[in-house]
Amino acid sequence: MRQAGRSLPEYRSLREGIGMLDSCLNPPIATEITLQPVRRHGVDAAIFFSDIVVPLRLAGVDVDIKPGVGPVMDQAYRTPEDVARLVERTLDDDALAPIREAVALTVAELGGTPLIGFGGAPFTLAAYLVEGRPSRDHLAARTLMHADPQTWDRLVAWTADLTGAFLRAQVLAGASAVQLFDSWAGSLSLADYQARVAPSSARALSAVAGLRAVANVPAGADLSAGGPGDGDGDGTGDGAGVGVPAIHFGTGTGHLLGAMRDVLTTAGIADRTVGVDYRTPLDEALALVGDGVSLQGNIDPALLAAPWDVLEAHVRDVVARGAQAPGHVVNLGHGVPPETDPAVLTRVVETVHAL
Amino acid sequence: MRQAGRSLPEYRSLREGIGMLDSCLNPPIATEITLQPVRRHGVDAAIFFSDIVVPLRLAGVDVDIKPGVGPVMDQAYRTPEDVARLVERTLDDDALAPIREAVALTVAELGGTPLIGFGGAPFTLAAYLVEGRPSRDHLAARTLMHADPQTWDRLVAWTADLTGAFLRAQVLAGASAVQLFDSWAGSLSLADYQARVAPSSARALSAVAGLRAVANVPAGADLSAGGPGDGDGDGTGDGAGVGVPAIHFGTGTGHLLGAMRDVLTTAGIADRTVGVDYRTPLDEALALVGDGVSLQGNIDPALLAAPWDVLEAHVRDVVARGAQAPGHVVNLGHGVPPETDPAVLTRVVETVHAL
Repeated sequence: MRQAGRSLPEYRSLREGIGMLDSCLNPPIATEITLQPVRRHGVDAAIFFSDIVVPLRLAGVDVDIKPGVGPVMDQAYRTPEDVARLVERTLDDDALAPIREAVALTVAELGGTPLIGFGGAPFTLAAYLVEGRPSRDHLAARTLMHADPQTWDRLVAWTADLTGAFLRAQVLAGASAVQLFDSWAGSLSLADYQARVAPSSARALSAVAGLRAVANVPAGADLSAGGPGDGDGDGTGDGAGVGVPAIHFGTGTGHLLGAMRDVLTTAGIADRTVGVDYRTPLDEALALVGDGVSLQGNIDPALLAAPWDVLEAHVRDVVARGAQAPGHVVNLGHGVPPETDPAVLTRVVETVHAL
Repeated sequence: MRQAGRSLPEYRSLREGIGMLDSCLNPPIATEITLQPVRRHGVDAAIFFSDIVVPLRLAGVDVDIKPGVGPVMDQAYRTPEDVARLVERTLDDDALAPIREAVALTVAELGGTPLIGFGGAPFTLAAYLVEGRPSRDHLAARTLMHADPQTWDRLVAWTADLTGAFLRAQVLAGASAVQLFDSWAGSLSLADYQARVAPSSARALSAVAGLRAVANVPAGADLSAGGPGDGDGDGTGDGAGVGVPAIHFGTGTGHLLGAMRDVLTTAGIADRTVGVDYRTPLDEALALVGDGVSLQGNIDPALLAAPWDVLEAHVRDVVARGAQAPGHVVNLGHGVPPETDPAVLTRVVETVHAL
């Protein structure tokens, strides 16, 4: 569960006085934060604690995360000259050392529990760069992709390479799967997504396609719960043999689910999972993504604060609707709300395990 | 075009030193702001300058619009007791006097140009009340509808009656059509929308169903451009004879378009228009809403800042895709961005008129 930490008192006490990006880049802290929800809730996999803009910081972009605001850049990057200066920056292998170290520490602590690597999708990164800060409609980014497609394509190729290197470092250090997180893709029409975004997302994921996870996946293990398949369409559970599984997730992406599956395919990912937010029932999502693709999701975070019988019925419904997929990574359909009672999350995990 | 004003220097100068809600409740100011984009751009209809939360203020709820934040209430209304106290408030006919006055003034100034009335949908109003302020995911509102459906239903029945009375007052004072604006409906699954939101939206619109527009509609006139039908499915252009036309709009509602059409039908609106945001091409929207329903939309606001040839091609494409609908109210697929060059909007209107 992404952002499970922020509902935990042990997370809030660990983060006290330490900025978000500083936490991400401090290996013992990033490791501890990654482990906290696993210890607390007994989930079947950990998700690496990081932030979408970490690769930007590592490439030397002046970005900070302001509490209550989000990522703020030193400037908005939206002219051809801005972008030309930006793409000269590279994400060196040396800069990724704290990421490798945190992943290796985490994997060692996790024992048999797999670690899912995490990275932001090229469009979402580019949207932050072009706007210079969070925005509701990502207007400047969407303007740029139409007004100057060449500059746009140059920008997202660069953010794709950054995120690709970031994910690749995590897999080489021991992550058993990756998740590419496109927070803002839902603001796009299908046509814009396919023409100006999907190619860069595929470019990012191709950096890990075919890589074997090096640790923590017991032979024959399957990261997805609920089915014997591994999502590669051959109907067998050949685990890490086909390269690391990849999950591609966004919110408000009901109209993009098929295109997001195509991104995974184009990237050469054999074990494909599409993440589905709480708006689209999983049986409908499955009809959209087709056979051979696993699903992740999609418990509605709003129901975590509802009475238990309401939440339990919803959890059972989600699991039942996902049962026909080759694999189903049971998860929330969005991040954990900060005010969530951690005991409720634990009970959800127990309920899913008992089904 | 909703929020066309905020890109105009004459709007900014008129608003200087006057709060948003004070502007809405001052008839000469609301009239002038409503007229400004009509004078500037020569559009075929005006949309009444107001705000979604105006009926709340008129019913005595302590709400203000903070610049850069949005509507902020004195408290979050989320317990059964909060809601019970709220629904005791009524929106008296007297309180609506400044609205009637502004509409009457506007209609007199507009001459033959029709005025479209404006009101926020019950869900969006309820989301502000339950959260107490703007929020990204409307979690507390979505929690309440599942945790305590009875309290939720009581709340949205009340906001529906408020908005219904607000729209009705506008029509009786001379508005030729109404638009029900559900800003946040896109955050809902179809199932939640149908069960806990659609009935209240229909309740709001039923307050104007069958009302005849009293002014400004020339005999046989049709508010929608592009077809002889009036959207009532009988294939004739019987104009105001079937009651005021109603437009139902939301953003991110591609998965809800059919359900939003059903709201219009259930309300008893004969001349139905579904507003479509920029994400869904109008030919696809038409396939979703079916025959006999007109469309509004859906020029992408992001393209207003693109080079003219890019924008012009997009405008032509929007008009072409909407051509098969019984009527097409050419409009933006979302509000006008504040930094838009007004000359570009004028040129868009000229281009559409020349097609």
